[in-house]
Amino acid sequence: MRVSSHTLAVATGRGIEFHDLTPALRALVAGSGLREGLALVSCGHTTTALVVNENEPRLLEDLRRFLVRLAPPDAGYLHDEIYLRDCPPDEPENTHAHLLAMMLNSTESIAV
Amino acid sequence: MRVSSHTLAVATGRGIEFHDLTPALRALVAGSGLREGLALVSCGHTTTALVVNENEPRLLEDLRRFLVRLAPPDAGYLHDEIYLRDCPPDEPENTHAHLLAMMLNSTESIAV
Amino acid sequence: MRVSSHTLAVATGRGIEFHDLTPALRALVAGSGLREGLALVSCGHTTTALVVNENEPRLLEDLRRFLVRLAPPDAGYLHDEIYLRDCPPDEPENTHAHLLAMMLNSTESIAV
Repeated sequence: MRVSSHTLAVATGRGIEFHDLTPALRALVAGSGLREGLALVSCGHTTTALVVNENEPRLLEDLRRFLVRLAPPDAGYLHDEIYLRDCPPDEPENTHAHLLAMMLNSTESIAV
Repeated sequence: MRVSSHTLAVATGRGIEFHDLTPALRALVAGSGLREGLALVSCGHTTTALVVNENEPRLLEDLRRFLVRLAPPDAGYLHDEIYLRDCPPDEPENTHAHLLAMMLNSTESIAV
Repeated sequence: MRVSSHTLAVATGRGIEFHDLTPALRALVAGSGLREGLALVSCGHTTTALVVNENEPRLLEDLRRFLVRLAPPDAGYLHDEIYLRDCPPDEPENTHAHLLAMMLNSTESIAV
């Protein structure tokens, strides 16, 4: 089996935001020479997720509101009490993003 | 790597419903000649999902109620204001199905 | 394509608990001789799930609380009325675990 690995850097800001990776992934697959097989896409961070769905602006706003309701950012999470953990004091309060990443999943397998 | 692709048509109605794809998938895998490898199953629509679990009627009704509570069909979604979008007026109001598809995921990888 | 299959037994108790499978999975992959490819990890039970995320004790407690709120164990599920089903009377009341397994997903594909 031929395997080809690539890293795609995506700059993210604060809060929930959506990035369309389809054009970049298409280009990576095309450039890899893969004709038939499987593209396994994985997030390199534990506070990000991947979904395959419709890229419609009003649906994305529905999704943002749904996710905020599902795991509110300021719900008093233990993991957000940064001063109690062995980590730098400027560690972001990102527990809601961890929870949502686990619910949405951070990997997608796409048939090529 | 040998790759074999197949399309499985599933007729769906309105609202949340469940279809057992196991017999059809088993037949496709058997017919493909695959002895060892991976069956990647993906939905061709963004309002459908795949789960691997127990096919017990009362559990499926629990699941239906759980999903309706998680993303109620009539929660005033922006994506359901069809007249504001550039699409045919008979486009279904299906935002809850998009959200649930993203939560449940629309792809399953199954070891064969 | 070379395929190698392994079973990893994990003893679980009652209620929601977390098990770090990373060391055991690393050892299995190393022992399999796989250098490049894909590790497909699937649960053999329908009341268990897999997540790839940060193994931080306070985050795991946040996750436990989140999951209990999402699908409370004692919410009067139909599947938990064991006496109405064709199964042994000591079948556990585990509907919440089925629902959470479907939400979190029971399979992970990991690039090696």
